Amino acid sequence: MTVPALSSDVVETATLCAEIARVQIRPHFRKPIGIENKEDASPVTLADRAAEQAMRDIISQNHPDHGILGEEYGQSAGQGDWTWVLDPIDGTRAFITGRPSFTTLIALLYCGRPVLSLIDQPLTGERWLGRAGAPTCFEGASFPGQVGTRACGSLAEAELSCTSPDMLIPPFDGRFASLKQKVRRTSWGGDAYGYGLLALGQIDLIAECTMKPWDWAALVPIIEGAGGFISDWQGNPLTLDSDGTVLACGSLSLQEEAVSALRASF
Amino acid sequence: MTVPALSSDVVETATLCAEIARVQIRPHFRKPIGIENKEDASPVTLADRAAEQAMRDIISQNHPDHGILGEEYGQSAGQGDWTWVLDPIDGTRAFITGRPSFTTLIALLYCGRPVLSLIDQPLTGERWLGRAGAPTCFEGASFPGQVGTRACGSLAEAELSCTSPDMLIPPFDGRFASLKQKVRRTSWGGDAYGYGLLALGQIDLIAECTMKPWDWAALVPIIEGAGGFISDWQGNPLTLDSDGTVLACGSLSLQEEAVSALRASF
Repeated sequence: MTVPALSSDVVETATLCAEIARVQIRPHFRKPIGIENKEDASPVTLADRAAEQAMRDIISQNHPDHGILGEEYGQSAGQGDWTWVLDPIDGTRAFITGRPSFTTLIALLYCGRPVLSLIDQPLTGERWLGRAGAPTCFEGASFPGQVGTRACGSLAEAELSCTSPDMLIPPFDGRFASLKQKVRRTSWGGDAYGYGLLALGQIDLIAECTMKPWDWAALVPIIEGAGGFISDWQGNPLTLDSDGTVLACGSLSLQEEAVSALRASF
Repeated sequence: MTVPALSSDVVETATLCAEIARVQIRPHFRKPIGIENKEDASPVTLADRAAEQAMRDIISQNHPDHGILGEEYGQSAGQGDWTWVLDPIDGTRAFITGRPSFTTLIALLYCGRPVLSLIDQPLTGERWLGRAGAPTCFEGASFPGQVGTRACGSLAEAELSCTSPDMLIPPFDGRFASLKQKVRRTSWGGDAYGYGLLALGQIDLIAECTMKPWDWAALVPIIEGAGGFISDWQGNPLTLDSDGTVLACGSLSLQEEAVSALRASF
């Protein structure tokens, strides 16, 4: 598939979306929440909806023929090959518990393939920008970071990460355990922020499952543009029909070893 | 036990320690690390040692009769009832993987009881200050937060947090599972930063084990000064002879319910 060159206006739209999402999300972060709060009036729901609506408005105005798929408001069909995939707050539990590791995810897909994406952290000001075929960019505000995955040659030396053991439902729990016993260390938590850290060479591999398209679409150009590899647990490219497993690795040899380990059950 | 009034100079020493630890730690954060790096030349070890040494120097100069117990350089006996307990980088895995959720922990103990403490995050600029019998203070730089635990009346409504399932070795795993199945939600990751979030009313309870004195000493005045309760898993006050279990709760009724749940095995 040949991807048309990305025009600067889609990059501008993506950036504008991240900026407006910051404005919508920040006032709701760490706001006191009564336990009696209804789910649909909780700070995370209010922030989620306000941010997605604001991003949809920008996209509709700038690219009226593009489709939009958002976690909160679903699918708006477009008239061409371009679709935006939005997750205003990836890492709901992180947001709810006041951790600045939730992120806003913005991806532009061409014929179902992510070709442009942003991971944005509204509080720290960290932002990753990925474009198919180009190096990933990172702006860290006062947080340091250099783009580039780490040259980690084997699982035995690798830092593995996963958001939560609770996402590892059968049969994925046994397969993950088989991978985990082969790595050097495992850390927990992170959501999409962890993939940003993999792109900065801080984490070597991430294996997760039960992931929706809005959870993984924005990760693809950023991981690939940093020298990494992202696939399902079998090593196949992620598509809208994927099984929800996601495996990101800093090197090809690590991916091959990880796919092999994930085949076995512990 | 009557605790003598805290003089402003010990608060000043604690603050100075946090400032100097920031200066020592920040240059090592997210520095590229070769996989072949020896443990004792890794960024986390270099930062850990430099920060602890700098803090020990300040304490020795300002309070030559005080004892010091540090994670990295061990015990220096004092000539009185006062001992500083230091953990320059709590959350080693968070630091290694580039997550700004590691913290510097500084506590002053009087006859073994923590009476003054700081939790400091060198990158975000967040800092919690606790003093026995006084309200906890929080400075968030550009991160919002209001001190005060949340009035969460029952486990069924509670947000539980724990740094890692890997710390839950037998028999603690079964007892934790018995607590976990009673709560509303569980999130993972956080180290001491999670206790700071509990003091801001963002998390309702944390249950952890295999904790050393330098892991928990700084948490006590901060949790208690925010209206919370901290103990071992049986509800007893933490002492230098504790069994390494730590339970922090936003309310007394939650603590009672949690202690009861932690008694049973899943």
